[in-house]
Amino acid sequence: MNQLQLVRELAEKATTKIVMLVADGLGGLPLEPGGRTELETASTPNLDRLAARGTSGSSIPVLPGITPGSGPGHLGLFGYDPLEFRIGRGALEATGIGFELGPDDVAARGNFCTLDAAGRISDRRAGRIPSEESFKVVERLEAVKIEGVETFVKPVKEHRFVVVFRGKGLDGGVADTDPQAVGVAPLDPVAAVPAAGRTAEVAKEFVRQARLILRDEPKANGMVLRGFAAKPQLPTFEQVYGLRSAAIAVYPMYKGLARLAGMTLVGRAQSLDEQIETLAGCWNDYDFFFLHFKYTDSTGEDGNFSEKVRRTEELDSAIPRIERLRPDVLIVTGDHSTPSLLKSHSWHPVPTLLVADTCRPDGLTGFSERECLRGGLGQFAAKHLMLLAMAHALRLGKYGA
Amino acid sequence: MNQLQLVRELAEKATTKIVMLVADGLGGLPLEPGGRTELETASTPNLDRLAARGTSGSSIPVLPGITPGSGPGHLGLFGYDPLEFRIGRGALEATGIGFELGPDDVAARGNFCTLDAAGRISDRRAGRIPSEESFKVVERLEAVKIEGVETFVKPVKEHRFVVVFRGKGLDGGVADTDPQAVGVAPLDPVAAVPAAGRTAEVAKEFVRQARLILRDEPKANGMVLRGFAAKPQLPTFEQVYGLRSAAIAVYPMYKGLARLAGMTLVGRAQSLDEQIETLAGCWNDYDFFFLHFKYTDSTGEDGNFSEKVRRTEELDSAIPRIERLRPDVLIVTGDHSTPSLLKSHSWHPVPTLLVADTCRPDGLTGFSERECLRGGLGQFAAKHLMLLAMAHALRLGKYGA
Repeated sequence: MNQLQLVRELAEKATTKIVMLVADGLGGLPLEPGGRTELETASTPNLDRLAARGTSGSSIPVLPGITPGSGPGHLGLFGYDPLEFRIGRGALEATGIGFELGPDDVAARGNFCTLDAAGRISDRRAGRIPSEESFKVVERLEAVKIEGVETFVKPVKEHRFVVVFRGKGLDGGVADTDPQAVGVAPLDPVAAVPAAGRTAEVAKEFVRQARLILRDEPKANGMVLRGFAAKPQLPTFEQVYGLRSAAIAVYPMYKGLARLAGMTLVGRAQSLDEQIETLAGCWNDYDFFFLHFKYTDSTGEDGNFSEKVRRTEELDSAIPRIERLRPDVLIVTGDHSTPSLLKSHSWHPVPTLLVADTCRPDGLTGFSERECLRGGLGQFAAKHLMLLAMAHALRLGKYGA
Repeated sequence: MNQLQLVRELAEKATTKIVMLVADGLGGLPLEPGGRTELETASTPNLDRLAARGTSGSSIPVLPGITPGSGPGHLGLFGYDPLEFRIGRGALEATGIGFELGPDDVAARGNFCTLDAAGRISDRRAGRIPSEESFKVVERLEAVKIEGVETFVKPVKEHRFVVVFRGKGLDGGVADTDPQAVGVAPLDPVAAVPAAGRTAEVAKEFVRQARLILRDEPKANGMVLRGFAAKPQLPTFEQVYGLRSAAIAVYPMYKGLARLAGMTLVGRAQSLDEQIETLAGCWNDYDFFFLHFKYTDSTGEDGNFSEKVRRTEELDSAIPRIERLRPDVLIVTGDHSTPSLLKSHSWHPVPTLLVADTCRPDGLTGFSERECLRGGLGQFAAKHLMLLAMAHALRLGKYGA
């Protein structure tokens, strides 16, 4: 029996409330041998106090050594095995711009490119077309009409956009049309699996009409499509955990990931303060609250150690306001590490803290990567975190008699 | 998706170099309650220094409590799940004597025995025939000729030898002919699976001709065959990791295991010093280097605690010469523990050290079983070690967007 089936079977009704605060990219590295990580450098009196009360550990997002993107990183935290459930590139891109995918949708990432007179790609980024120009080109593509299929074309940034085909019987198994080279023409969409035959035809018709529409464009007179993908079929939080779940996030990507798990997007917060206001405002309406804090990741991606430290301290200072709501389970974790040293996501385990009245004390006095190594949760697979959350919320019955 | 597929998908080209130094049987036990293990007793200034710089942990070869042989022990270290990939006894025996199995080979372990006048086994070890006598008997078996099949018979030690049948369509699914008792005749080779029908016929013909050849032998006038097995189908290091891989080992068994993973055997080193010379000599030609050190195992098997301590110190003193080559990732581990107290392989987790510039500090100051328990790698499955090696060598791309 897999984990999701197990939880479905054991989940019980309760009135307890779980807050999962995801500090994106939380874990880090020292800049110099023998130095301190961002989290160790930051002054985090509130997290330290919680660490003394709760149980800590190190979360492994996918497998040791595997660096996750945001998709698999969050799937793990939500209890979906990120090796079993995969979010295709097109579906993730659509999700990332806030396009809510339906069950009949197939999404693909589009890139405008420049074609020469012979139809060969001469510039794979359409002359680095700025967003304000490309957005107008995207609008023109809305004129495409394909029988039996609804088509959506949405801008992303610069030469990038998203196409969504909506219709019965579509399938994500269509090969990329991007030849990944200049001097050659874009490929025709072809089915990579038998079930995608119709989708390939739809994509081909889209490309045919788009070509006519774009032919006079000075920069974006061509395009390639990549990462065809349907919405991943995740059982919802309600179905698996019996939790009424709210997502309180600022960025579309994380709202989208929460929607894939069936959470309700609440509020329009643009800052952590506003997120916590939103949290307080909807406190009585939900059982589970996913709060996403972006800036521990983006500062790490920028390689800005001191700013990541500052953002970590900002996160820490918000903790008392969350505590005031008296969640039965409060989790602070990340979807992956983003060390400023690497300027990217990494594979290192993520410091994780769980606070509840049912925590077994582990003797820690602070919250950091190093402390977490000696924590009561040990090193654990991220996909198991929701089991711990449910258990400490007294929402899981006994397995077997 | 399984781990090998995942790595294949994520592996990226790089110029970084990984050294995996396997101290066979590295972990141990104190001789007395409250005492120190061999590793804790040994003076290991170099490993201690590396532990302060790198990340340590405890490797679980197969599963907690499971004692591995050399085959599964090394498969795990090489990233192959030892519960998924099994090396049949015959294939391991052939590998152990340096016989390079091909894709059309089926190997079996042979034991000479003494038969009475009625053809029943009277001595299962052929009167403890010494190697110099049995080697001559093995030579006589080279006269066996079977149509459509090439036959190899190779001595191992005393009454033990290896038979390899080479031909199209052979299969390892042949039952043992050893009745595991005296007073009964050897069994006929029979197919245990339908695909092994021809192989069973081949084995039967081998036995028939061998019986004629051996009938005048005073001790070894009979034989039994066990552990029929083809070469395990492992994807190679090149295929999985994109690593050009060199194996620098002294003993045939470990060379054989490395060959099964597609590594190139380099040099003819007979000592650790010569192994490191070989390493330096081929440094520019490979990305991954497997160095095997036997004596931490053999001294443990002998129950010679102080000699295991001395061999551990010998290993430690070789470390600076490896460091001088500036590997991007240096791993020191073992394929299993071999505590002198037990005089055998054991199930205890194996102290493991990984050193790279991307290590997160874990606060350790020494390298020992006890220190490793508090290390940043935690307790981990041996099969995940290569993922960590690849990650720290910056040779793995991000999983999912």
